[in-house]
Amino acid sequence: MIGEIIAIGDELTSGRILNTTSGLAARELFLQGHEILGMHTVGDAPELIGEALAAAVARCDFVIVTGGLGPTTDDMTNEAVIKTFGVDGRVHPGVYANIAARLKDDALVASLVKMAWLPEGAEVLDPEYRMAGYLLRHQGKPIWFLPGVPPQMEILLRTKVLPSLQVFDRNHALPVCQTVYRTCGLFEIEINRRLCPLEEQGAVIGYYPVGSEVHISLTARLLEGGAVDPGFQAADAFIREVLGDNIYGVGEETLAGATGRLLRQRGLMLGTAESCTGGLIGATLTATAGSSRWFKGGVIAYANQIKERLLGVDPALLARHGAVSGETARAMAGGLLQCLDCDIAVAATGVAGPDGGSQDKPVGTVYLGLATRDTVTDRLCRFTGSRRQVQEKTAQTAVDMVRRALLAR
Amino acid sequence: MIGEIIAIGDELTSGRILNTTSGLAARELFLQGHEILGMHTVGDAPELIGEALAAAVARCDFVIVTGGLGPTTDDMTNEAVIKTFGVDGRVHPGVYANIAARLKDDALVASLVKMAWLPEGAEVLDPEYRMAGYLLRHQGKPIWFLPGVPPQMEILLRTKVLPSLQVFDRNHALPVCQTVYRTCGLFEIEINRRLCPLEEQGAVIGYYPVGSEVHISLTARLLEGGAVDPGFQAADAFIREVLGDNIYGVGEETLAGATGRLLRQRGLMLGTAESCTGGLIGATLTATAGSSRWFKGGVIAYANQIKERLLGVDPALLARHGAVSGETARAMAGGLLQCLDCDIAVAATGVAGPDGGSQDKPVGTVYLGLATRDTVTDRLCRFTGSRRQVQEKTAQTAVDMVRRALLAR
Repeated sequence: MIGEIIAIGDELTSGRILNTTSGLAARELFLQGHEILGMHTVGDAPELIGEALAAAVARCDFVIVTGGLGPTTDDMTNEAVIKTFGVDGRVHPGVYANIAARLKDDALVASLVKMAWLPEGAEVLDPEYRMAGYLLRHQGKPIWFLPGVPPQMEILLRTKVLPSLQVFDRNHALPVCQTVYRTCGLFEIEINRRLCPLEEQGAVIGYYPVGSEVHISLTARLLEGGAVDPGFQAADAFIREVLGDNIYGVGEETLAGATGRLLRQRGLMLGTAESCTGGLIGATLTATAGSSRWFKGGVIAYANQIKERLLGVDPALLARHGAVSGETARAMAGGLLQCLDCDIAVAATGVAGPDGGSQDKPVGTVYLGLATRDTVTDRLCRFTGSRRQVQEKTAQTAVDMVRRALLAR
Repeated sequence: MIGEIIAIGDELTSGRILNTTSGLAARELFLQGHEILGMHTVGDAPELIGEALAAAVARCDFVIVTGGLGPTTDDMTNEAVIKTFGVDGRVHPGVYANIAARLKDDALVASLVKMAWLPEGAEVLDPEYRMAGYLLRHQGKPIWFLPGVPPQMEILLRTKVLPSLQVFDRNHALPVCQTVYRTCGLFEIEINRRLCPLEEQGAVIGYYPVGSEVHISLTARLLEGGAVDPGFQAADAFIREVLGDNIYGVGEETLAGATGRLLRQRGLMLGTAESCTGGLIGATLTATAGSSRWFKGGVIAYANQIKERLLGVDPALLARHGAVSGETARAMAGGLLQCLDCDIAVAATGVAGPDGGSQDKPVGTVYLGLATRDTVTDRLCRFTGSRRQVQEKTAQTAVDMVRRALLAR
């Protein structure tokens, strides 16, 4: 089926907030075999909303609209829908009862009653009425109205819109088969070079750099009956062959998740000693559910005093080589191993910027250290970008250093 | 002037890549006083591109188009422009000469010649021809075609589009004056309630929740001569009055930056003791440039053993109250103060989920602890959302707890 996505909000057209919900919807719809003709963003003005809505309904089989359903004065989606489609508005009893039940204060209830004033025929999506959002059928076409708040929008998209779109899809679109390979350790242009033979055979390949990682997509439509094209399988094998260990996972697996899986398999506990990343390596690792089974903890040794005091880094070594050095990175990793009594430790020390760079060690210079019960190694990286980008690339590369050390065991 | 922004690319309509360039352009244009009627994203298809382009030119004073200018087969913007506007295409001699000069290989030059094939009348933006992009005038209206690659697009937007748009703007749009107030500690609906009197007077106010924070924008057009409307100043004073200390900063200032500013003013050094956030509080703080002047370091006490070993939390206390308790949060903060010899310490321990919740302490239950040289306090928070959201809200609230403690000193 062919659809359009409309995002509503002055915060979007004034560029104050980046629109992330339209892209999410487009991705999920694409993978189910639907085609997005266009994505539109308009401000909080009933005429603009109505115009975009009428044009989309005329061109498409379905429409998804996000934003403008809230209680504040700048939320105007319902007003626009009622005017554009010439339907009546009414207070939805279920939504109203839920608001009234949750709030004791009559004035507060009155200020939220706007959220219950929906177009006639609106089928509210959340059966418990905790999130705004409804389905409206117009000229037989489904239009979903979803909240603009990304997490709420995502829940309703996944649990309500996608399943119910199948019901509307009479010709049953053939789903798209897509594998996303997540890599760390190769530049995009080198990956492109290695995959050129596949592209010349017509394979649909996309490249997307994310900090120090590059994600690669391989896409094909499934055959009738849901079978995967043999060409797709051959391309998959080729990609795995030429990229090897640089692929840390496929699909949604994160680098931290893949590393945690290896740690668990080997029964090892990891610890971190961080200077320039200030805790970001630990935060990256513990974003993974269940990380307590393989992550023990860490020391954020931001000041040199902490490097000495907690990690036992020799002040003479710091004075001789500087805090940003391979020697310090190794001493931090080794010291952390002792301090936390863990099996493997990774350390990072570097110049995140924007100040603090020198000719020898410009902004982006980072040393990583890795210690196990019997080895200590270090690695020099030179990253580019803003302070945050240097910190993020450092954290990714540090986690990848652990992953590669585990693969070699 | 009124404009539209069109982004082109299948990678956008399939949701594989998030569109960040349209939002950037919208923000810069908005602040210069222009209005964006709509932002559209269409795939790599000449008819769709042409349709969007024709509609935008009919409605607006100017148009900005990004993407589809590259050398690969899926780059179709120039083809669409030539067809839609009925102009001729020709090889641009400057662009061609630059490609030929940089490449020795004739086959490579031939594969890139497409990039030099531009609509008649195109004024190339980069005088050194290193970036794609041109200005085309159609029916007297300027249309800028820019690369889809964000950094290149941004350079040309700032150095070429924005300055030259001033020339086209005969009525000289009055720049917009906008203040963004960043708050932590109040729900969106409560802020809306407090600002209602302003909205009733016609003030343009926007609300945007970001985790535990809510950002509020107040917008007005500058007066002739660049002066700020007295009504804007009165509204600004009202907002600062009714939101008080909940406003931690304005504009681009982050919560960590505002907290760091207060620490520096008071000459205090901060440390963190993190369990459920795994380093995210430290990472949030050190995202701020110059944080070494007020952030000393921290301990990621993920395993209970680390809480005991490094932070000196009494095992009996852990056994009695559990790791997720006010007592443990206070002991962690107090222990960290000793361990790091810092002036103020913040600690977080909680259930980030998705597992580990109980009836008493469901997922999202977090205890924060705060210790100074003479006081120790704790605070119970109950957050909702995914593991990552709980961790982010915890980190924001922990930093805000430090900020409020400093304000009270």
